[in-house]
Amino acid sequence: MNKKMKAALLHGIGDIRIEDIPRPAPGSGEVLVQVEAVGICGSDVHYYAYGRIGSAVVTEPIVLGHEPAGTVVELGEEVTGPSVGTRVAVEPGWPCGECEFCRHGRYNICRSMRFLGMPPANPGAYCEYIAVPADFAFPIPDGMSAEHGSMIEPLAVGLHAVELACMWPGQTVAVLGEGSIGLFTTRCAKLAGALTIYATDLLDCRLEAACHLGADVTVNAAETDPVAAIMDATDGRGVDVVFEAAGAPETPQQAIDIAVPGGGIVMIGICQEQPVKTDITEARRKELVVRYCRRFCHSFPRAISLAAAGAVDMDCVDTHRFGLDDIAEGFEIVKNYLDGVIKATVQIPGG
Amino acid sequence: MNKKMKAALLHGIGDIRIEDIPRPAPGSGEVLVQVEAVGICGSDVHYYAYGRIGSAVVTEPIVLGHEPAGTVVELGEEVTGPSVGTRVAVEPGWPCGECEFCRHGRYNICRSMRFLGMPPANPGAYCEYIAVPADFAFPIPDGMSAEHGSMIEPLAVGLHAVELACMWPGQTVAVLGEGSIGLFTTRCAKLAGALTIYATDLLDCRLEAACHLGADVTVNAAETDPVAAIMDATDGRGVDVVFEAAGAPETPQQAIDIAVPGGGIVMIGICQEQPVKTDITEARRKELVVRYCRRFCHSFPRAISLAAAGAVDMDCVDTHRFGLDDIAEGFEIVKNYLDGVIKATVQIPGG
Amino acid sequence: MNKKMKAALLHGIGDIRIEDIPRPAPGSGEVLVQVEAVGICGSDVHYYAYGRIGSAVVTEPIVLGHEPAGTVVELGEEVTGPSVGTRVAVEPGWPCGECEFCRHGRYNICRSMRFLGMPPANPGAYCEYIAVPADFAFPIPDGMSAEHGSMIEPLAVGLHAVELACMWPGQTVAVLGEGSIGLFTTRCAKLAGALTIYATDLLDCRLEAACHLGADVTVNAAETDPVAAIMDATDGRGVDVVFEAAGAPETPQQAIDIAVPGGGIVMIGICQEQPVKTDITEARRKELVVRYCRRFCHSFPRAISLAAAGAVDMDCVDTHRFGLDDIAEGFEIVKNYLDGVIKATVQIPGG
Amino acid sequence: MNKKMKAALLHGIGDIRIEDIPRPAPGSGEVLVQVEAVGICGSDVHYYAYGRIGSAVVTEPIVLGHEPAGTVVELGEEVTGPSVGTRVAVEPGWPCGECEFCRHGRYNICRSMRFLGMPPANPGAYCEYIAVPADFAFPIPDGMSAEHGSMIEPLAVGLHAVELACMWPGQTVAVLGEGSIGLFTTRCAKLAGALTIYATDLLDCRLEAACHLGADVTVNAAETDPVAAIMDATDGRGVDVVFEAAGAPETPQQAIDIAVPGGGIVMIGICQEQPVKTDITEARRKELVVRYCRRFCHSFPRAISLAAAGAVDMDCVDTHRFGLDDIAEGFEIVKNYLDGVIKATVQIPGG
Repeated sequence: MNKKMKAALLHGIGDIRIEDIPRPAPGSGEVLVQVEAVGICGSDVHYYAYGRIGSAVVTEPIVLGHEPAGTVVELGEEVTGPSVGTRVAVEPGWPCGECEFCRHGRYNICRSMRFLGMPPANPGAYCEYIAVPADFAFPIPDGMSAEHGSMIEPLAVGLHAVELACMWPGQTVAVLGEGSIGLFTTRCAKLAGALTIYATDLLDCRLEAACHLGADVTVNAAETDPVAAIMDATDGRGVDVVFEAAGAPETPQQAIDIAVPGGGIVMIGICQEQPVKTDITEARRKELVVRYCRRFCHSFPRAISLAAAGAVDMDCVDTHRFGLDDIAEGFEIVKNYLDGVIKATVQIPGG
Repeated sequence: MNKKMKAALLHGIGDIRIEDIPRPAPGSGEVLVQVEAVGICGSDVHYYAYGRIGSAVVTEPIVLGHEPAGTVVELGEEVTGPSVGTRVAVEPGWPCGECEFCRHGRYNICRSMRFLGMPPANPGAYCEYIAVPADFAFPIPDGMSAEHGSMIEPLAVGLHAVELACMWPGQTVAVLGEGSIGLFTTRCAKLAGALTIYATDLLDCRLEAACHLGADVTVNAAETDPVAAIMDATDGRGVDVVFEAAGAPETPQQAIDIAVPGGGIVMIGICQEQPVKTDITEARRKELVVRYCRRFCHSFPRAISLAAAGAVDMDCVDTHRFGLDDIAEGFEIVKNYLDGVIKATVQIPGG
Repeated sequence: MNKKMKAALLHGIGDIRIEDIPRPAPGSGEVLVQVEAVGICGSDVHYYAYGRIGSAVVTEPIVLGHEPAGTVVELGEEVTGPSVGTRVAVEPGWPCGECEFCRHGRYNICRSMRFLGMPPANPGAYCEYIAVPADFAFPIPDGMSAEHGSMIEPLAVGLHAVELACMWPGQTVAVLGEGSIGLFTTRCAKLAGALTIYATDLLDCRLEAACHLGADVTVNAAETDPVAAIMDATDGRGVDVVFEAAGAPETPQQAIDIAVPGGGIVMIGICQEQPVKTDITEARRKELVVRYCRRFCHSFPRAISLAAAGAVDMDCVDTHRFGLDDIAEGFEIVKNYLDGVIKATVQIPGG
Repeated sequence: MNKKMKAALLHGIGDIRIEDIPRPAPGSGEVLVQVEAVGICGSDVHYYAYGRIGSAVVTEPIVLGHEPAGTVVELGEEVTGPSVGTRVAVEPGWPCGECEFCRHGRYNICRSMRFLGMPPANPGAYCEYIAVPADFAFPIPDGMSAEHGSMIEPLAVGLHAVELACMWPGQTVAVLGEGSIGLFTTRCAKLAGALTIYATDLLDCRLEAACHLGADVTVNAAETDPVAAIMDATDGRGVDVVFEAAGAPETPQQAIDIAVPGGGIVMIGICQEQPVKTDITEARRKELVVRYCRRFCHSFPRAISLAAAGAVDMDCVDTHRFGLDDIAEGFEIVKNYLDGVIKATVQIPGG
């Protein structure tokens, strides 16, 4: 196919350019999605700022973006649905389907995952059209905007984290880090019946959003020691479940320190500085269970249902929108935590 | 102690009398509670109507009632709290504390349980004063009425049932039977993140209360086959979790029939007609897990917290109140499902 | 393909005939297996004796048999393995691979399962060649006979049942019914660390085999009340886990009666008489968890590994072998529990 | 009471002396045990070598020792059993019995635990008599030596660790560190059905014992990189469950590296150098569950039953025995890993 489309290519650190590239065609089992909105994720910004995340290096110009929503415009062979015209949120990781982990239904830990917009070789969604496996394009309801559709991805992470936590009504919870994933985790923990949620972050605007979504007590960790504050507020008991969603070097230790004996920790955040240093003496004394969380697994349909049912106020996360031509501005704002940004979305006009 | 108090004694079938009996004194480890409100439970009414439940037979006059709330007025020896003047809800089952099950923290399955108001020998709470173990008198907040305090008991059952179900946000649920326990189960399932709750009962007034508390779809089983209705509404899939709270002969089979393959059933209801007949072929084909629910376990504090936080609208369950002298009238109304009764409470004026 | 092969066809009740029928060709994704041994299962005998199991009716001549082992002799298109010449045990249920349950890794509860040798329309393995999905043909080691290979199927059921039970070392167990599945369940429970296993059956020869495989105490239920015997032997406590593998009308109630409070029951057996009558009062008082078991799930490779490692003495189950021409004799012996039969196998000479 | 007894007192680093001290009298609820054998634990040796473990400091002369077995010789008030003359293994941690964790049956995480032989203030068992709570003195069978009785304590740790792991038959396991706790963990993992156990240690004599107790493949980590060896042996898959029982700085990372995606890690070891540095990137990518293990919980009776049933060969752990007068020699041998020592026991002659 010799058709062209507009795309934002990252050429190197801080160098993102709008160019015309070939429009993809849907292969067998794929649908072509006309992209309408794509979230800007912290990992996108990290590639933009540093040119790499661990072993994933930007070696040639690449289209980033892995939180797309849009409309199905063409079906590849052997696709029975979703049909042309269906508005969809796209789950961005596509497992092999054959390995032990896929067969056991835990496809999120497939070792042969293709991931949308992941350097060096997997192009992403900051462009007009993407071809994606039909099974990973999930219909969204008419009343849901494309921007909110693009936010199903971080909501699915929060939902999966809460599923891993095995909560029950009346538990106490802490969420460390209230970026978009922390916020959706907060919301899902409240949906799971949390009685009291303690939220920590460095930015007051995020803590305000956390309160909107279900947090009961907030701690600005730039001003107050969150461990002391939460232990004090719980009369020294600690909380039943801690969600680490900050990805900071110090939050894993905080999680251990504020968990109740016998409690659980769910590790969601991606700390770029490894190794992490933790004193695990208390983890052992408290006999904690630490569950690491890998993205999401079978979570998109449920996340869409919850959002469609009004169980999640996505507006208070959806703070900034940019056109494709202004994507660099969006990246800078997210990178520098400017203007109270929580989730910024790139809007892509019809192709 | 030669002090007297008023009490309602069940002398035999349909024969309940208000009499003066000796006021109890708190033993070591006990507190004396001045009773202010006591719920009328289906089991109380069953003793009133039939004189027995299984092997528990009313052989001599007995004070029934096991859902009391009131105020601590005297402490026995070695009691450090709750202090005199504290308003409390009383957990009515008192385990031995020594057996294998108690030591493992599962005191609700203790085989040596003393249960308040259980024939033939354990007197209950339809009276002015009861002596109860201090550990089973749980403080309630100032803003909670004694009537609502007495309803902590059925709420605790619903909370325990939902804990057994191991739910997560976005699941679909059915609650079969919307008496007070079914209603509180409905509420707790909603608190646990249920996306859609199907509620069934024979009485429309209860289904209306179920909607208030979180049910999304109701089926009056007197008019509509609940299995067909729920399978139809779920496109033949069934629901993730079924709570059997009716105690009817036909509801266990309904639970099997509407559970999704791989799903769970929590059996709460107490069917008086045993044995139950069930075709378990589908239970095996679906590889269901059936969890039987025994009252509550460590549930009172959390139930009180949730009610105190406003997470449970207790008013729509709290339909009828009677004075101690009118207790027989209350029993008749509950027994015959008159006047839209859901939960009736006996109010006991200060001694 | 106009090649022919020998097969045993069930024409009706008690009427099984050896005939020449067309040899199948492997389709895409399938392998052709030259069958060497096929177990005779109680369900095969039930079709032979009654012409039906529930809604599965023998309406036209059908080849039964779903416990085959043999050698791969031809690969269909797109098959990468197992290669020609590989000796395999065949898992007999083939799920759709697309539904919710398959995608979650619980393919054994797929509602669109094709099952080998299931009336009216799925031909089975009492014949020289079968075409099966390559993914369900599992290599067995050189040292394992085809007869033992065919017994991987019932071993996989026992293994799956024990996985469902979530056991730990030192628990006490009862296995009700010591046919081949009960025997393998007994063995797997011992492998899972059972300290004491109580085995019940009506036949002493099976109880002897149970002792070989790990049972510590046996009860012939034709002579002794198993509930009284096991409760007595456990000083009234009961056992931690009960496996119901008899499929008799009375064993579900026995399971409830002998389970310890807080214990678990795994229901494996297929009772042909439904509904089952059970008094569930004690199940609720004990807060039991009843897990229904559906065949096996991801169990074949692990069952083969355990057998290959010598962890399961398959010889004491492998009591009778018949040639294909003598299959009716085998059915009669199994049907009438003659000659100490536990597992009979049909041997099929090379085509 | 003015009776005296012999005891070994640690006065300071490397300074242990046999002295006469007052014999204790059993308080209410306690029994007096005449000590016959006490294991030397790594923590005892650590106090001997460094004078402290973390915040527990030897500030005044103290009797160490927390793995005693002996005979009940006197009952305190309100004790109904075990009776005088009963031989017992003593569980050394005594919880408050009142806190949230005790009431939930998880007494091992009680924050008010008294622990036998723990500086600065809790005297231990290297002496002729100890008074212990009757509920923590567990009868051992006649055929079990006091030395083996004293080894119930480390066996109980291994059993508890395996219970936390939620294993099933056919899983693959690695045990990192084959001291006495690692060895008993190895045995319990085998009892739980492990198909293949990989064992690592720095000492060949311990690896040999590991093979006796169930290990299938051993890696001397002083010579071979255990991560490379185990990943190679498992074709890059890793193992289902890793038990970290070395308490070395590098083993937590090894555990992450060799766990299969979706697998579990149980952290048993007590690393004296904190904080631990770990790169948790792979833990998150693999979505691992890390369960920290705190001693034991309800484990002594089951450990005794398994040992009594012959399921654990304790002889291959029981390598060295010393008289009370030679305790310092025993400490030196354990401290320096001399003479192939695995578990050394102090024998105490009748008082």
